[in-house]
Amino acid sequence: MLGYFGPAGTFTHQALRTVTEEEAVAFASVREALDAVRQGDVTRAVVPIENSVEGGVSATLDELIAGAPLAIQGEIVIPVEFGIYAREGTELADVREVLTHGHAAAQCRDWLATNLPDAGVTEAGSTAGAAAEVARPDSRYDAAVCARVAGEMYGLRELAYQIEDNAGAVTRFVEVGRAGSVPPRTGADKTTLVAYMRQDHAGALLEILEQFAVRGVNLSRIESRPTKTTLGSYCFSIDCEGHLHDKRVAETLEGLHRVCPQVFFLGSYPRANQRRPDIAVGFSDGEFDAAAAWVASLSRRP
Amino acid sequence: MLGYFGPAGTFTHQALRTVTEEEAVAFASVREALDAVRQGDVTRAVVPIENSVEGGVSATLDELIAGAPLAIQGEIVIPVEFGIYAREGTELADVREVLTHGHAAAQCRDWLATNLPDAGVTEAGSTAGAAAEVARPDSRYDAAVCARVAGEMYGLRELAYQIEDNAGAVTRFVEVGRAGSVPPRTGADKTTLVAYMRQDHAGALLEILEQFAVRGVNLSRIESRPTKTTLGSYCFSIDCEGHLHDKRVAETLEGLHRVCPQVFFLGSYPRANQRRPDIAVGFSDGEFDAAAAWVASLSRRP
Amino acid sequence: MLGYFGPAGTFTHQALRTVTEEEAVAFASVREALDAVRQGDVTRAVVPIENSVEGGVSATLDELIAGAPLAIQGEIVIPVEFGIYAREGTELADVREVLTHGHAAAQCRDWLATNLPDAGVTEAGSTAGAAAEVARPDSRYDAAVCARVAGEMYGLRELAYQIEDNAGAVTRFVEVGRAGSVPPRTGADKTTLVAYMRQDHAGALLEILEQFAVRGVNLSRIESRPTKTTLGSYCFSIDCEGHLHDKRVAETLEGLHRVCPQVFFLGSYPRANQRRPDIAVGFSDGEFDAAAAWVASLSRRP
Amino acid sequence: MLGYFGPAGTFTHQALRTVTEEEAVAFASVREALDAVRQGDVTRAVVPIENSVEGGVSATLDELIAGAPLAIQGEIVIPVEFGIYAREGTELADVREVLTHGHAAAQCRDWLATNLPDAGVTEAGSTAGAAAEVARPDSRYDAAVCARVAGEMYGLRELAYQIEDNAGAVTRFVEVGRAGSVPPRTGADKTTLVAYMRQDHAGALLEILEQFAVRGVNLSRIESRPTKTTLGSYCFSIDCEGHLHDKRVAETLEGLHRVCPQVFFLGSYPRANQRRPDIAVGFSDGEFDAAAAWVASLSRRP
Repeated sequence: MLGYFGPAGTFTHQALRTVTEEEAVAFASVREALDAVRQGDVTRAVVPIENSVEGGVSATLDELIAGAPLAIQGEIVIPVEFGIYAREGTELADVREVLTHGHAAAQCRDWLATNLPDAGVTEAGSTAGAAAEVARPDSRYDAAVCARVAGEMYGLRELAYQIEDNAGAVTRFVEVGRAGSVPPRTGADKTTLVAYMRQDHAGALLEILEQFAVRGVNLSRIESRPTKTTLGSYCFSIDCEGHLHDKRVAETLEGLHRVCPQVFFLGSYPRANQRRPDIAVGFSDGEFDAAAAWVASLSRRP
Repeated sequence: MLGYFGPAGTFTHQALRTVTEEEAVAFASVREALDAVRQGDVTRAVVPIENSVEGGVSATLDELIAGAPLAIQGEIVIPVEFGIYAREGTELADVREVLTHGHAAAQCRDWLATNLPDAGVTEAGSTAGAAAEVARPDSRYDAAVCARVAGEMYGLRELAYQIEDNAGAVTRFVEVGRAGSVPPRTGADKTTLVAYMRQDHAGALLEILEQFAVRGVNLSRIESRPTKTTLGSYCFSIDCEGHLHDKRVAETLEGLHRVCPQVFFLGSYPRANQRRPDIAVGFSDGEFDAAAAWVASLSRRP
Repeated sequence: MLGYFGPAGTFTHQALRTVTEEEAVAFASVREALDAVRQGDVTRAVVPIENSVEGGVSATLDELIAGAPLAIQGEIVIPVEFGIYAREGTELADVREVLTHGHAAAQCRDWLATNLPDAGVTEAGSTAGAAAEVARPDSRYDAAVCARVAGEMYGLRELAYQIEDNAGAVTRFVEVGRAGSVPPRTGADKTTLVAYMRQDHAGALLEILEQFAVRGVNLSRIESRPTKTTLGSYCFSIDCEGHLHDKRVAETLEGLHRVCPQVFFLGSYPRANQRRPDIAVGFSDGEFDAAAAWVASLSRRP
Repeated sequence: MLGYFGPAGTFTHQALRTVTEEEAVAFASVREALDAVRQGDVTRAVVPIENSVEGGVSATLDELIAGAPLAIQGEIVIPVEFGIYAREGTELADVREVLTHGHAAAQCRDWLATNLPDAGVTEAGSTAGAAAEVARPDSRYDAAVCARVAGEMYGLRELAYQIEDNAGAVTRFVEVGRAGSVPPRTGADKTTLVAYMRQDHAGALLEILEQFAVRGVNLSRIESRPTKTTLGSYCFSIDCEGHLHDKRVAETLEGLHRVCPQVFFLGSYPRANQRRPDIAVGFSDGEFDAAAAWVASLSRRP
């Protein structure tokens, strides 16, 4: 059984559907979804990690490192696409009152201004809640702007799709399981971690990043985050290319473990875009093995 | 006249009040608030830059660099504190139905479970909207969880305050004006910029950070952000200690201008916490002047 | 009047001849030659800086920074080529006793073993002294291995030339004048300096080198040298590409002046090989000017 | 049987005596001494590595990497101290003609000018040769300036000692054996290597040095050296603190092996000064083991 950060009908729900078509449990918060994994109530949970519509990034990172260790098992990237949905029988020309979440309204402002210039737009608590409300036969709202999954779930009719002003935006989710379970290496993997820094000086971040650079490990995301314990101190949330079982990544993790007061390994998993990194000369597993063999040979009489 | 990212009654509104008690214009989006500055409709606008409750960070950074240049004039940090507000005559024991935004509900979950275990919690589009709804005499909701400014605005009674589960969370806002206006140096300043990187290799971020480190400039925040133009390419949103008129910062900006394909200077302004940086040996203005004088002397016959 | 580290007939003398055909003063040591420049007795002096035959490197660097400031005006690179020289009338087949300096003997060992297998080889104090001795009609030595200049000076006959075992070795000299006189920039220049480091930790040299790297300045030579004042502490003797009047070099020197307890500028001068450096994107004078103009523009209302 | 770079009576000979009192073989060049080790004619050879009096550094490094692999087994540091030696019966006041090597004459100039202002100074091929000459009863020279070992060897009388102008200069020698034999770790060790760099850009040396810095390995000497094969390309001769069997050194060597086109390991051996390095937090063997154990634990279900 899988869990997810609900309610049903959100982009998180849509992301979950790319992983399983089975029934899943919606949790009211990221923390509750992750705690359910920790307690064994669900085997895995899908939670947002970069989501400009419904939030959740900071929360997810904080929750991942807050309790018993968890490990990301995979990432799911889906386009941020909105549709406008109405009860059967309603045409676009009939729409007078639109209900949606404020962020969705902001992201579809141009389309609404062009296509429904006279309609009123009311903010709901969520896009899924807007679809649920519109589905009620006696609702005073004619249409909801929401994810397709919500339109389908509430039996609404799609009046238009991809009505967002900026095409190409994506939102990213992760599927989280218990620590110790590392998905097999695919050659197109990503590793996520959080590293705390010892000191707050101009070179401290450099020292952390050099651990990656000297081993040829590319970063694909970095974000400093204030630590809650000490004012003015920082930790870094980092995604890098490669897998725990790539030697360049394993040695980098060892290096971080030595120079940082604390490092959280949050998982190695296949990249959603399946792009294989360019491994620079010197950083393949074969080259790590050859180097270790050379050093071992130095102590042996030839 | 100042503007802000509305609606009235949000934390942004509360942040605005720390700057001015005069009337201000609420805008429906960060973009509209910033465009109003660009067009001269308002002299400055207050918008969220780190706000775990109402979002807005990414939007704000994207909008700051999207059109005519703007400059941050100051930052405002306020604690994320929620209260529960009801109509006059309602006691805490009477509350059966609570209305609030989903994020606020999540952040006050423990308090609500302990103090109102039997109350229903309904999600509104915003905490301010929840307060407005509760203020209606015929509302079917008994209380709203929202910022104090919203409770006051709608004439509600505060039943409890600081009901958030995690004390100490803060949210950060910036006051934005037109480019070219740089607040005077105070000695406890911060500079915000966005730097694009030329290449996507393990050392590219290092090269950017070394521009800061060799001039003794500490970073206080860094975040990589995918650029919208080219897939797989990144830019960095950075806050560093110091002011454009500190020589170490000016030389760092010059260095970034040379090694990055594009750099946006988003302002130098006093730090909200008024903490003065520790300037390491070699990086004061006096030491920059002495070094320049020494180099100039090398070409002169003694 | 020029001076040089004598005696006459050495490679230093040969280097001097590439600069002037006028008479010059030979000094018995590098220190005496340089002090003569300091005191105005000669305008310039030619001294060895990399010379595998006659030594002098360390001495020269130490002497350059030991007293009143001097500045290198140019470098002279000459091939290390030996000839074998005899009195008029002596053929190669007649040579029984060879006189030369020990280093020269070592560098021509193969040739001597092949061409004069039965000849005795005696060590003289210098190759020039060997030539002088062989020039005496009553000398018991038949031939000297020395620089061509010595053979010519003492009227000897060249029996063979380029008899050194390793072709391609070069020796490097500098022409030194008073500080403050910097030769004009040619675009193919070199700058020599000595930088002291503040601390003896793993990153201290890195901090010095980053001053060069962030400004795109290539090193062409680096050598750590123990400082005489404090046991276990080091300074670095460095040659880098570029001229004091290149902005990237000037800013690097300023940076070193700030982070090092002491820096000695020993001159900017044309490279002997006339090779122009590849200036990476971002590091030309034009790009320095553009960056400075951009930073200046940030404080002006547009 | 040991070998050394002769002739007898030099500082190298004096260095050898600190290692063994047994008879040893003098070789005419560093190459011959090292080749004798390679061929098993001697078990080890003592050769100069930093010697301001008699040269030999460059030659030694070049020869160490030129043929079958060798390994430095130890270093010997001895003070550069000169004495003045005469035949029995000669007092200092009697000395009219002094014979010595040019470098020795230069280093004792002040003492000679003060104590023997009227004596002539003639240059010999070596200080040892000068002593041999003075030992001849019919020599026209009264005294030799040389190492004490030479004075003793030729049965001369010491008229004065420590007559060098600069006290405190030292000269450094290494004892070289066959590769594969690594002296045991003492905790106060040094490792010598030569690393070639792939490219000739501003950051190439930095990349090499970062391999040391990220593993907390201090350098105690670095020298760039032009490579003979390709014009304008460089390699680096490096001494670092620590032993091949220190994990931080072994991992550094592995890193160099990967990023450099060629690395020569020239030995790990006890430091002559017996100074133990300060190992920064994170770089002890125990911390390497703990980091490796942590990384290994990440793949195991807890």
